Amino acid sequence: MNIFINNSIFFVLIIFIIASSCVNSSDQEKINEKPNIILLFADDLGYGDLGVFGHPTIKTPNLDQLASEGVKLTQFYVAASICTPSRAALMTGRLPIRNGMCGGRGVFFPDTEGGLPQEEITIAEVLKEQGYATACIGKWHLGHKPEYLPPNQGFDYYFGIPYSNDMSPVPLILGTEIIEEGPDQAQLTKRYTEHALRFIEENSESPFFLYLPYTFPHVPLYASAEFEGTSDRGLYGDVVQEIDWSVGEIMKTLKESNLEENTFVFFTSDNGPWLVMKERGGSAGMLFEGKGSTWEGGMREPAIAKYPAAIEPGWMCSAVSTTLDLFPTFAVLAGGIIPQDRVLDGANILPVLTKKKTVAKDTVFYYKGQQLYAIRKGPWKAHFITVIRPYGPDGITESHEPPLLFNVETDPSEKYDKAEEYPEIITSILKIKEHHEAGLEGVPTRIK
Amino acid sequence: MNIFINNSIFFVLIIFIIASSCVNSSDQEKINEKPNIILLFADDLGYGDLGVFGHPTIKTPNLDQLASEGVKLTQFYVAASICTPSRAALMTGRLPIRNGMCGGRGVFFPDTEGGLPQEEITIAEVLKEQGYATACIGKWHLGHKPEYLPPNQGFDYYFGIPYSNDMSPVPLILGTEIIEEGPDQAQLTKRYTEHALRFIEENSESPFFLYLPYTFPHVPLYASAEFEGTSDRGLYGDVVQEIDWSVGEIMKTLKESNLEENTFVFFTSDNGPWLVMKERGGSAGMLFEGKGSTWEGGMREPAIAKYPAAIEPGWMCSAVSTTLDLFPTFAVLAGGIIPQDRVLDGANILPVLTKKKTVAKDTVFYYKGQQLYAIRKGPWKAHFITVIRPYGPDGITESHEPPLLFNVETDPSEKYDKAEEYPEIITSILKIKEHHEAGLEGVPTRIK
Repeated sequence: MNIFINNSIFFVLIIFIIASSCVNSSDQEKINEKPNIILLFADDLGYGDLGVFGHPTIKTPNLDQLASEGVKLTQFYVAASICTPSRAALMTGRLPIRNGMCGGRGVFFPDTEGGLPQEEITIAEVLKEQGYATACIGKWHLGHKPEYLPPNQGFDYYFGIPYSNDMSPVPLILGTEIIEEGPDQAQLTKRYTEHALRFIEENSESPFFLYLPYTFPHVPLYASAEFEGTSDRGLYGDVVQEIDWSVGEIMKTLKESNLEENTFVFFTSDNGPWLVMKERGGSAGMLFEGKGSTWEGGMREPAIAKYPAAIEPGWMCSAVSTTLDLFPTFAVLAGGIIPQDRVLDGANILPVLTKKKTVAKDTVFYYKGQQLYAIRKGPWKAHFITVIRPYGPDGITESHEPPLLFNVETDPSEKYDKAEEYPEIITSILKIKEHHEAGLEGVPTRIK
Repeated sequence: MNIFINNSIFFVLIIFIIASSCVNSSDQEKINEKPNIILLFADDLGYGDLGVFGHPTIKTPNLDQLASEGVKLTQFYVAASICTPSRAALMTGRLPIRNGMCGGRGVFFPDTEGGLPQEEITIAEVLKEQGYATACIGKWHLGHKPEYLPPNQGFDYYFGIPYSNDMSPVPLILGTEIIEEGPDQAQLTKRYTEHALRFIEENSESPFFLYLPYTFPHVPLYASAEFEGTSDRGLYGDVVQEIDWSVGEIMKTLKESNLEENTFVFFTSDNGPWLVMKERGGSAGMLFEGKGSTWEGGMREPAIAKYPAAIEPGWMCSAVSTTLDLFPTFAVLAGGIIPQDRVLDGANILPVLTKKKTVAKDTVFYYKGQQLYAIRKGPWKAHFITVIRPYGPDGITESHEPPLLFNVETDPSEKYDKAEEYPEIITSILKIKEHHEAGLEGVPTRIK
């Protein structure tokens, strides 16, 4: 209980017993208690930037193989279309609007004093409490003062950079100490991978949680000498292919350590592609727009889950799910404890990944900063506010009354507004909005 | 020799010996002579419309599996962005400009008198000459008078409709006889599949060539009762999922007949999605534009090749290749004969599919009608003329002097014109254009 007591917070804990909450008896033999959990998290990777998600010239054989051995999630969302709020949601399972981790300057900068509030409970804290060895290796971006760094947010081990790689000179940190100023960025993916492999090998006897937030393909792009020039997609492709290599090394090490069967691996990214960077940025495939917007391209991400003990290999799951779901999913996997004194916004998606259920939670809130721009319910998405070219000099923000309405399953590119045709769907989504907003407490932004 | 003599044409035949022309000695044991060949050909399917090519809500487990057991081709082109010229090129291995199978009204209509000239040699004629049983089951669209139908173009067996399913009432033909007027289109995919399975089973002892040009997802869309309403993508998705089912049935039958190892299976489509049909049309994924245009979305198609005897399973090949290459490839596979009295525009791609070579032929000519709109050489594509929204009332055709220039490998969506930056590449592509046009003889259009 130490981490919670250290945080001086009291909350009710409910034990979620795996057998009763998420799987039926026939799975009990297969799903072991406390599987290892690996969360691979790219930065600014677009929906269309992996081979298995349709990119024609970026070759990602290891991620493609991960999908062929697990499940490809085609309607998986993040909770914000930029870095800091997206990661805050990932770590806490809560919409950033609930704790001030959105708005203001958008993301944390080197002159920021604050960070993810210590009274928030991170998934690392929950897993550590369950006996997991925990590591964060990569880009944090939830506060760079020592008190906000991973070692004070539930991680036993931290190696990486504290914010984006364009905030120069970025420091390289081990634990809470800066060990290098302005490290050679071309070596970062390789160095993260080495640390990750060592962490896996050193913890092969105990359950572990490895969170590996890659620095790339965020601009500026750097690949190591072995990868530079290897992709037909240019430097962006080289960088993604080096991440793919890294994923392959991790999977190889799991296999060699006999940990493959009992490790839950999840791959996704923090937000959509940074389109204003042109060829240095990625592509959202057939989805419209990218980073900084609440169109699908900004917040829907490629996602892959592999867990041989319980997930059938080689299928495509189009159920709606989000990074908010990973907190309860991992907690349940770990035999776990979920805080009951606060709102969690996600749902355990294991029943969906194991084909016991077809839907976990099919409502998505698309925030930009502290404003709710859009809501998806089932196949329908209503836009109250839209922005196009959010980073360009010609960006346009518009309010919509009535909202724009798209069926993003028949029309994933959000081309055909159906607002006139389906006013009753708009009415029902507006009720969801009203209910959601009534349940929110005003929290000022912490991103200053 | 009967089919050629019947056509009263004399031409020089050169025996292409497989061992010397396309594979090295180590493959001789593996690649059997005269493998079966199955060519599955969709109609108006977009680049982004299969699971394995990144569609989020169209589920194509059988085509995805085909790719995982074979190779996914991500830079595969057709020779025209509409039906008749595209199919003429597929059947003859020749650009339609060489024989008048382009221009005029674009495609054949029910009141058309003509068809693919009998003096053209089809791939079916070449394979039949090599002892193959040959069948065309599906939509032909190369002339519907008996003398132009598949039985007079090298196919032993024909069952299908002679032109597009929006040219109503479309007749259903067996051999050269109309057996039904206006058949129930919702049954077509199933009926084609039944005929195809029977053809495979009846020819399991002899080599066979099955050409299966599906009627769909060309608009109007029809799915059978078993498939209607099954896809999250709406009727378009239902129709594609029924085609996927059909592919699965064929693969199952091959397996059950012990023909899987020695059958070369190829899947692609005739041209890009019919965008003006909105949700009834498909999507080109991250490629720009669709059917009727010479942007990538009009002429680059999803493609998959499986041939367990020689093609490594589960990889992505981004080498440039086209439907023009299938004629020489199939001829070589069959131990085959290639006409030498005429220009063939493709190249045998077996060495690329078996990883012996990285490039077969990397020049692509993008014709619209009888006009050359663009040329691709290596990663570079120069547009001399472009059209956007070719079927819309607001369509725009523009000439470009200098041409627009895109690197379609780093920029598959053709967003960033590099003409100013690389004038020398434009110069070299203009030389290719000049040389190509100097080698053409003027042939009036046959599409009246």
